[in-house]
Amino acid sequence: MTKDDSGTIPDTEPLAAAADLATALRELIEVSVTTTVPAGEVRAAAELVRQVTERLAAARRPASQLSALDDVRTGRRVFNPVTGVGSALAPPLVLRRSGDGVAGEAVLGVAYEGPPSYVHGGMSALLMDQVLGDTAAAAGVWGMTAHLELDYRGPLPVGEPLVFRGSVAESDGRKSLIVGTVALAAAPDQPLVEARGLFVTPRREKLEAYFGAITDGSGGEGPTSMASDATALGED
Amino acid sequence: MTKDDSGTIPDTEPLAAAADLATALRELIEVSVTTTVPAGEVRAAAELVRQVTERLAAARRPASQLSALDDVRTGRRVFNPVTGVGSALAPPLVLRRSGDGVAGEAVLGVAYEGPPSYVHGGMSALLMDQVLGDTAAAAGVWGMTAHLELDYRGPLPVGEPLVFRGSVAESDGRKSLIVGTVALAAAPDQPLVEARGLFVTPRREKLEAYFGAITDGSGGEGPTSMASDATALGED
Repeated sequence: MTKDDSGTIPDTEPLAAAADLATALRELIEVSVTTTVPAGEVRAAAELVRQVTERLAAARRPASQLSALDDVRTGRRVFNPVTGVGSALAPPLVLRRSGDGVAGEAVLGVAYEGPPSYVHGGMSALLMDQVLGDTAAAAGVWGMTAHLELDYRGPLPVGEPLVFRGSVAESDGRKSLIVGTVALAAAPDQPLVEARGLFVTPRREKLEAYFGAITDGSGGEGPTSMASDATALGED
Repeated sequence: MTKDDSGTIPDTEPLAAAADLATALRELIEVSVTTTVPAGEVRAAAELVRQVTERLAAARRPASQLSALDDVRTGRRVFNPVTGVGSALAPPLVLRRSGDGVAGEAVLGVAYEGPPSYVHGGMSALLMDQVLGDTAAAAGVWGMTAHLELDYRGPLPVGEPLVFRGSVAESDGRKSLIVGTVALAAAPDQPLVEARGLFVTPRREKLEAYFGAITDGSGGEGPTSMASDATALGED
């Protein structure tokens, strides 16, 4: 990794490599839940996967140390399980500023299925928590989720482009009420899921209690006052 | 696969092989978000993963066809992204009947992280949607999520055993209000997340509209009247 005066900047190649691995893993996960090859082939795949794990496990950061690829000041969290380009769990949902809120599109495959052929209802909740939190962060009022609620109007089909939106309904600086929707990209103004979230910026002493032990990517002092799981957002 | 008079019964080995692959993939995902090996090693891992994907992609079911390993009559969904033993996205959360509700434990690793060292708030929502839905199903009132809400009292640390619980608050046969909690396994009676969900059994015509095109594992007629994403639950 390189460093400059403004702090740790990830090399382009480590970030690209992490994204490449996550992309490959997402494809493997989707195939793993739909494959009909014989059990022996599945066992052989598991063995190969374990060999890959062993190679990557040769050097690891502890959970208390941020990835060197992250930058909490800009909100970049490469391994976030919703928006992280380096997370195999994440679709990933790439969010951008849109109007006075944020928006993003994603296609969720069979791996994200709840009832047959529909996205798991909890997945909408997972993704919307991130969308609403990033909406708060984009408005400069980063906080942690205090309350989240969702109304489900209709099921979301797997394999079809979906659009996720968030906007600030109210904010007093420390507490923000954020609203958002999920809809088919083909019918973006007919929400199938509606969400509301209350986000609260922890007070200084809580931030210290929650994140005081976190270190940055080089193992040095952590970013207690600016902990965030928001993603750096581009413009629409 | 073998068949008997009661329908399609998955062989033990295909189910065990699917679970083995998912277990291996979960370990790889956790290592992939914490590895600090050089970018070249990460690229090599991605290439190996693509080779595994290619082998498993040799034969696949369409999204409209249930896995031959599933049995919707007993509620078994092997690839469910919360409870499925065959899902690499799932921790998996293994739920059992407990008292008049359900309970289960899981440890969520760094791959499930939102704020540094804590579980993503949306993950609690994802998991609790499943817990509440399975609680309804275990009580014989399977339904789809109509409303879900969560209050967050404190953050859930990654890497520590968590306990998830659900119980029926009210039910009129078609609509059920289910409540539940997430707590540290070490302090199970101090909820850090409280959840409430309203689950509604779709009427016959909606079931037909939602699931009429689904076929069973052998490509035959689908289980329209008994679609479920609940998991078969053992006793406590």
